[in-house]
Amino acid sequence: MKTYDIKPLDRTLEASLTNKINCLTKPKGSLGRLESLALQIGLIQHTLSPSLRNPANILFGGDHGAITEGISLSPKEVTLQQMIHFGRGGAGINFMCRQHGFRLVLVDAGVDGDFPAGSGVIDMKMGRGTRNYLHEAAMGADEVDLAMSRGASLVDMVHAEGCNVVSFGEMGSGNTGSSSLWMHMLGGVDLPLCVGAGAGLDAPGIARKLDVLTRSAARTGLVPGNADVYRVMAEYGGYEMVMAVGAMLRAAQLSMVILVDGFIMSACMLAASHVNRNVLDYAVFGHVGDEAGHKRLLDLMDARPLLALDLRLGEGTGAVCAYPIVESAVRMINEMDSFVAGEVTKYFD
Amino acid sequence: MKTYDIKPLDRTLEASLTNKINCLTKPKGSLGRLESLALQIGLIQHTLSPSLRNPANILFGGDHGAITEGISLSPKEVTLQQMIHFGRGGAGINFMCRQHGFRLVLVDAGVDGDFPAGSGVIDMKMGRGTRNYLHEAAMGADEVDLAMSRGASLVDMVHAEGCNVVSFGEMGSGNTGSSSLWMHMLGGVDLPLCVGAGAGLDAPGIARKLDVLTRSAARTGLVPGNADVYRVMAEYGGYEMVMAVGAMLRAAQLSMVILVDGFIMSACMLAASHVNRNVLDYAVFGHVGDEAGHKRLLDLMDARPLLALDLRLGEGTGAVCAYPIVESAVRMINEMDSFVAGEVTKYFD
Repeated sequence: MKTYDIKPLDRTLEASLTNKINCLTKPKGSLGRLESLALQIGLIQHTLSPSLRNPANILFGGDHGAITEGISLSPKEVTLQQMIHFGRGGAGINFMCRQHGFRLVLVDAGVDGDFPAGSGVIDMKMGRGTRNYLHEAAMGADEVDLAMSRGASLVDMVHAEGCNVVSFGEMGSGNTGSSSLWMHMLGGVDLPLCVGAGAGLDAPGIARKLDVLTRSAARTGLVPGNADVYRVMAEYGGYEMVMAVGAMLRAAQLSMVILVDGFIMSACMLAASHVNRNVLDYAVFGHVGDEAGHKRLLDLMDARPLLALDLRLGEGTGAVCAYPIVESAVRMINEMDSFVAGEVTKYFD
Repeated sequence: MKTYDIKPLDRTLEASLTNKINCLTKPKGSLGRLESLALQIGLIQHTLSPSLRNPANILFGGDHGAITEGISLSPKEVTLQQMIHFGRGGAGINFMCRQHGFRLVLVDAGVDGDFPAGSGVIDMKMGRGTRNYLHEAAMGADEVDLAMSRGASLVDMVHAEGCNVVSFGEMGSGNTGSSSLWMHMLGGVDLPLCVGAGAGLDAPGIARKLDVLTRSAARTGLVPGNADVYRVMAEYGGYEMVMAVGAMLRAAQLSMVILVDGFIMSACMLAASHVNRNVLDYAVFGHVGDEAGHKRLLDLMDARPLLALDLRLGEGTGAVCAYPIVESAVRMINEMDSFVAGEVTKYFD
């Protein structure tokens, strides 16, 4: 298992950044979350004048063997169909990337199907879906390492092309199941509190999903709250999620701002934080959705997302949708005048 | 008193809009608030393909006679200074308007001071600040009518130039006091639940403000929860707020989307809704801030704002900051493929 060195934030500029923010022409603290974001990004980039360049959303697709157990309303074929559809530009993530100037990078991490020529999807296929975690490990330990490395290499690619702010998305029918198991095993949260409707299961469907996940959790003998993160990833997959974990860790190594999407990407950030806790210093959580347990999952990381718009699409939409707020924070610290320059009376200390 | 005819939303397209939204390539309902926004804007514009054009933020400045009672941390001179500063481009609302392509229209509704030549502020000065509502009515009934008409004329101006989505902002040291009194008198909410820190009062400052507002409420004999809206506006001002009320009503008459900023503009929307309840059909609430009572004020209008980012700057920032989400909703309904066009299996009814 590879280690990922990530430096904690260098806080030598913290006082200067705070002072700069407090001297802008506004009542102290009155730009709320924009102010805390500006501080975080200034610390990440170690500058009083941070900037956001060439944002990218890297979207990993993968299938899950356990989908045959009836854990998802969305049929498996939808993974391939949607990945192809993303390449054509007509899906949810597409309009949002166009709106906010994001490059969209599509990656086949392990889709059970073949992409037509010209689909625009990068081939990093680890397999035709994971194995069924109800009966056996979703993937081998060597596959975890390889998937993490491949994820990291994609971040290297966009970084080399000037990107310093990146979000991650996923497409994988059934992957809320893996996310619930990761949350359960890594966070020690009772499984029923980790399981929700995914793409739209009804109450009996959720009960069936919980039953499958409960038996899958019991199979491995892993101890919730005290399980090794690499082992959890191997047992429960999926490829698209493990690749995202490697990508997040590399993005933090490169001092990039990481925008975190909804439930599944939050589970990936939780896993990344179990590899190296410092990754959280670089994370900006975009959205808290209505998937049961998402709030609890975020609490495990002391995360306070920017948006709560009842999104549950995935694909990176909850992260990209929050981007203009992050951009506002950076514009605030760069473009607003101080009280002195603005010739406005500063009426507080 | 002028009446404002506002037609309720024509709902003949509701079923078609809902069907179009449900056939887009995503799990049903998975774009949450974007879906309800797309429906609202489709109904406002009476089309399955809504559009947002030439957004504008009209920012009204005005002073308050009651500020001499010590109800605000921000001194009165800051109103004039900030209005001049907005014209130079270095304030909070400026970077946000630049970021989201908003035209910023600056209006002197009643600032107690003179603007230098070339300040870019439209002169609609009703007076050099309102009178002190602790002792007398802030303005006369005729001034209410005139201010509302002037506000409406500014909306006519931007509408004539192609704008169909408008937000309103304010600058007026002390105007959270007027807003609290409006909320108390129109909404029937106990005054202590309507009063907060404004630009940053401490606990003794808030207590003093509450005392002044309590005596001001008692002076008029108006009955909270059963007070005439025109009378409330005249008694408690300010000019910038009354102008915004007239502007909101005209925007609804013109079937424009109205983006509502924080506490003060929410109080103006409450007043507008007491003139004509249909105005709420055209309102999109941008932000719920941490000013005490804002949540309660929004509840009076069944409003569910898009953002909660601890903003309390005013100027329209809470409305303009939410604009990209509104734009996302419109892009969603226009740019996403249906399941059929996207060649994706639709797996629900």
